[in-house]
Amino acid sequence: MKLDKHWFTEICEEGGSAFSLKIRGKLHEERTPYQTIAIYETEDFGNLMVIDGFIMLSSRDNFLYHEMMAHPALFTHDRPRRVLIIGGGDCGTLREVLRHAEVEQVWQVEIDERVTRLAETYFPELCEANDDPRAHFHFGDGIQWVRDAAAEHYDVIIVDSTDPIGPAEGLFTEPFYRDCHRALAPGGVLVQQSESPLYHLDIIRGMRRAMAGAGFDDQLTLTFPQCVYPSGWWTATMAGKGRSLTRFREDDAARRPFPTRYYNEATHRAALAQPPFLSEALARE
Amino acid sequence: MKLDKHWFTEICEEGGSAFSLKIRGKLHEERTPYQTIAIYETEDFGNLMVIDGFIMLSSRDNFLYHEMMAHPALFTHDRPRRVLIIGGGDCGTLREVLRHAEVEQVWQVEIDERVTRLAETYFPELCEANDDPRAHFHFGDGIQWVRDAAAEHYDVIIVDSTDPIGPAEGLFTEPFYRDCHRALAPGGVLVQQSESPLYHLDIIRGMRRAMAGAGFDDQLTLTFPQCVYPSGWWTATMAGKGRSLTRFREDDAARRPFPTRYYNEATHRAALAQPPFLSEALARE
Repeated sequence: MKLDKHWFTEICEEGGSAFSLKIRGKLHEERTPYQTIAIYETEDFGNLMVIDGFIMLSSRDNFLYHEMMAHPALFTHDRPRRVLIIGGGDCGTLREVLRHAEVEQVWQVEIDERVTRLAETYFPELCEANDDPRAHFHFGDGIQWVRDAAAEHYDVIIVDSTDPIGPAEGLFTEPFYRDCHRALAPGGVLVQQSESPLYHLDIIRGMRRAMAGAGFDDQLTLTFPQCVYPSGWWTATMAGKGRSLTRFREDDAARRPFPTRYYNEATHRAALAQPPFLSEALARE
Repeated sequence: MKLDKHWFTEICEEGGSAFSLKIRGKLHEERTPYQTIAIYETEDFGNLMVIDGFIMLSSRDNFLYHEMMAHPALFTHDRPRRVLIIGGGDCGTLREVLRHAEVEQVWQVEIDERVTRLAETYFPELCEANDDPRAHFHFGDGIQWVRDAAAEHYDVIIVDSTDPIGPAEGLFTEPFYRDCHRALAPGGVLVQQSESPLYHLDIIRGMRRAMAGAGFDDQLTLTFPQCVYPSGWWTATMAGKGRSLTRFREDDAARRPFPTRYYNEATHRAALAQPPFLSEALARE
């Protein structure tokens, strides 16, 4: 079966696979100082944001990623009051973080303001909490921001970035994690998207090694489905400062007073389950 | 990005998506009395079997599907001795079933003998248990086989079929489930692949309704990743005869004396976790 011009295709070279969505048309495209952002209207996935040819999110299935980037880390922390999001320009993770009533302040540091402006236009549902007085937007370099941060200032740091090539590369390194470790208060949690468990075990292993080298006491890789990303299966890796990560506030998660579509206390535990192939690969250092 | 002739693509019309694998070449193609079977050599997924244009399995990631079609049902049953597999011609599910020492007999009823013969050639690792004296092969109509089965003969029935179009259509109906219910001993478990939780909620709902209508006392839909199937996320639905399905032999699963790559007691529990969107959709009848 061949795909004609009515399809957008992303090839994953390292996986030897490709994923395509049927599109109605291109709504927008622009070259920013950092990257090329395109917005498509799809047939069945709502709107689609693509950066430098890589799918970032669709209206239909972003709930999986955004809920799993926010809620496991926040329900793992005992009392998350100050949260930092690096990247996250589409504001979907921010919306989920702001659902937690005990969160007092969220800083979001996205390098490319155009991602946020386009999300406001094409993914307004993800930006519906942007006026929350607890949310602070800074458009600039996340690496520099964490380097300049006061020590022990944040409870949770969420790295919601693109792949470890291009502008996001420095976010996958030990010096960056060392700054994150310093900026986290004791008991703090770092979480970062960490690619596919089928395709990118080397990236996951390298990230965990770098987190441990930076001083974190525990690392835990969560898995969850994410249809539009390569292999349809994705991970986020948490690191704990002076804490373990396998226990979380299960009762609070079960009694959460806000709606979710994928996250609950059971899918949180499910994300912690380590299939044998994954635990064996992660033990191999 | 456009895909050239070095790619095999499966379009999922109802999902508005497509999945492609990079191929080195076509190893085999034939038209059987039932369907067209093609075998490709891929770049990164090993060999690939395609039936009527739909991806059935790849060497690389079939472990996810086959382990999750076999082990959850077998570890849910108290003591599975007699197992029936409908379909399953590639023998990957059969291999997993035969890993259970307490299984005394397995009957596999596949309509198209050529699927099994081609699996022996192109997926020999899945057929390595085919000489086990406990395995009995019958090539014929699974619907008729279950209709003719002695009452209360099987402990577990696994329906490992293609999609509910074409030859497999009758396997998704209440009359078939009624025959399965009759053929299962008390405490028996039926499990069937039930498509994507993102794309096929209507099929899952219809299957569960038909199972309940056929007399089963409990239905439970498991989720697990399956990269090469539409949306990369898949389900199997279990039905219990005079039993609930949420409890399983966790200690036996943890102490299983055979290797697995995805399945363990934690991923079994993970598969049972019902995300809110899924439990809400399944409650809506």
